[in-house]
Amino acid sequence: MSGEVNVAVVGGGVIGLSIAWRVAAAGHRVRLVDDAPASGSSHVAGGMLAPIAEAWPGEEELLELGSVSLRQWPGFADELARASGLPSGLRREGTIVVGVDSADREELNNLADYLAGLGRTVTRLTGREVRRLEPSLGPAVRGGLEVPGDLAVDNRQALAALRAAATAAGVEFVTARAREVRPGAVHLEDSTVDCDVAVIAAGAHSGSLHPRLVGRIRPVKGEILRLRARATALPPPSRTVRGPVHGRPVYLVPRDDGGLVLGATQHEVGFDTEVTVGGVRDLIADAEQVLPGIAEYQLVEAAAGLRPSTDDNLPVLGWLEPGVLVATGHHRNGFLLTPVTADAVLALLRGEEPAAEVKAADPSRWGGQQ
Amino acid sequence: MSGEVNVAVVGGGVIGLSIAWRVAAAGHRVRLVDDAPASGSSHVAGGMLAPIAEAWPGEEELLELGSVSLRQWPGFADELARASGLPSGLRREGTIVVGVDSADREELNNLADYLAGLGRTVTRLTGREVRRLEPSLGPAVRGGLEVPGDLAVDNRQALAALRAAATAAGVEFVTARAREVRPGAVHLEDSTVDCDVAVIAAGAHSGSLHPRLVGRIRPVKGEILRLRARATALPPPSRTVRGPVHGRPVYLVPRDDGGLVLGATQHEVGFDTEVTVGGVRDLIADAEQVLPGIAEYQLVEAAAGLRPSTDDNLPVLGWLEPGVLVATGHHRNGFLLTPVTADAVLALLRGEEPAAEVKAADPSRWGGQQ
Repeated sequence: MSGEVNVAVVGGGVIGLSIAWRVAAAGHRVRLVDDAPASGSSHVAGGMLAPIAEAWPGEEELLELGSVSLRQWPGFADELARASGLPSGLRREGTIVVGVDSADREELNNLADYLAGLGRTVTRLTGREVRRLEPSLGPAVRGGLEVPGDLAVDNRQALAALRAAATAAGVEFVTARAREVRPGAVHLEDSTVDCDVAVIAAGAHSGSLHPRLVGRIRPVKGEILRLRARATALPPPSRTVRGPVHGRPVYLVPRDDGGLVLGATQHEVGFDTEVTVGGVRDLIADAEQVLPGIAEYQLVEAAAGLRPSTDDNLPVLGWLEPGVLVATGHHRNGFLLTPVTADAVLALLRGEEPAAEVKAADPSRWGGQQ
Repeated sequence: MSGEVNVAVVGGGVIGLSIAWRVAAAGHRVRLVDDAPASGSSHVAGGMLAPIAEAWPGEEELLELGSVSLRQWPGFADELARASGLPSGLRREGTIVVGVDSADREELNNLADYLAGLGRTVTRLTGREVRRLEPSLGPAVRGGLEVPGDLAVDNRQALAALRAAATAAGVEFVTARAREVRPGAVHLEDSTVDCDVAVIAAGAHSGSLHPRLVGRIRPVKGEILRLRARATALPPPSRTVRGPVHGRPVYLVPRDDGGLVLGATQHEVGFDTEVTVGGVRDLIADAEQVLPGIAEYQLVEAAAGLRPSTDDNLPVLGWLEPGVLVATGHHRNGFLLTPVTADAVLALLRGEEPAAEVKAADPSRWGGQQ
């Protein structure tokens, strides 16, 4: 396609906002359809940019895609700050993966071995070395891996900047809920947004918008706590700290001003965003093993979001049919994969090939149309 | 005093609202000064009406005062519902005190013996008998006391009804913060409410309003969780359940529609209403011992309030000086002591003697004036 394209983006989370901003900044007309932009799972998210710490055998394509996107993040953040006049929220302090018991340490060793086999070496640390880097971590931490390249972003700062950048680029916000997406049309409750291309970026809710997505995107609930260090408490670590704690994943992502985000549970329970007592109990218990000082932190907020997940944990990113693009299924990696996703959508709109690593995420892997 | 009295009530919690309602309904002019009525500790409170379960050797005067007020509650609630057209929130299902370990059971036995010595017999229950009454209680509960006369009130329903009743009775709400109370005047930031009698009912904040209260009322922080049973969870007990759990006090107060209030921590940390991670962790851990099913409950809200406490745990209720009444220091017992407090203030305004049990709460016990 050449010249100005009339684009409708469905979904105002980090993916939809970023696409809308980038596409509008490239000179196209963009309307973004969401009844409450920046309020869903992106608002709840931890904001880790951690392809290495989250690497998993068999998910090499996701690791490659995440690595490409992570390399783009500093430039993306700079552009975002410039375009919005607001902080991007990117933090460059790196990540430590820690373990508490011998099974956790075994898991860290397996991760390190796996990464080394891919030519990606991470530094193994003793418990003492971990505490030298982050003195607030507790005596239960018995070893770790240093992953300085895995970063994090303050999700709410980034969302605020993306809204401002999108607005500045001329994106029109349509405050409504999309019901169905077809070539040339996004159908709302009682009206239609006509467009040349529709982009489905509605996270866990995408499955109901297009026939080819039915049964492909399932919600995976995650509960998160937002804390703040009180004056009398030890300050949070400077790096993101994550662990298997007695086999259970937990992460602690520092924010500015003593903020700390604790996440995240994983439950496949449908469209349920209620915070459970058991989820809160587990998050606190696991995080206290890593950072005992949080007992003195303020509990500011407890919330749950829905990760949009696919069977292979890869996003779905490409043409669903002529006139309909999809960019969802980012699972735990929405913020991480934002730059590469937005660029890929812009390339596809221009009729260009996106980055090679994006190919694995094409909906054609499901067979059928395309 | 006879005829219409011009009264200014400082404080819009359960005590201030009740006084304002009762005094206005008796034909006096009442202005209630609060910058945010019904939003402070009364909004956070559990709402137990439990003089027996909370009885403590050496606090016989408080037990007597609480018992008098508890007897007034059903009539008070009926009048409140009638005057407001809203539910009073009173629940009549009674209370069970439970214990988990042998030290807890010892504590229950001591309480039962103490009450028996005062001629107040409570029924001792085995763990099995407790679970027969409340099948959702867990196997860790090893004994209990049945206290059918100790009730509870939905604090937020009661506050809404009190505001409506006060408004209907002609109470004028002055949305401002009181700075100082003197005979004939409540001084605000930049104006004054003139009155014949001022009533200080500002809870933990009362200490700064009048010279005789300085150093007499200290804030005792309490953290509380509000839960709701999810569709898949066991329903909450029908009675209030409280315990020493491994020596720590905890209570579970059922509300309508599957609601459950968990309380409460006790910390003397000044005017601090931040919810701490450690407080939440302890409340959940203790409550789970009693009611394991709460793991599947929704965590709806976490909040902290400030109990207004005195050195002898009795409220302070009487004339501070001519023209200035005080009604605060209700500690853990604000809702319980509301009917007797409101009646006492009305009697004092009329120049009558309040109930004999109120005498112990008179500020004259501190010596000095009056």
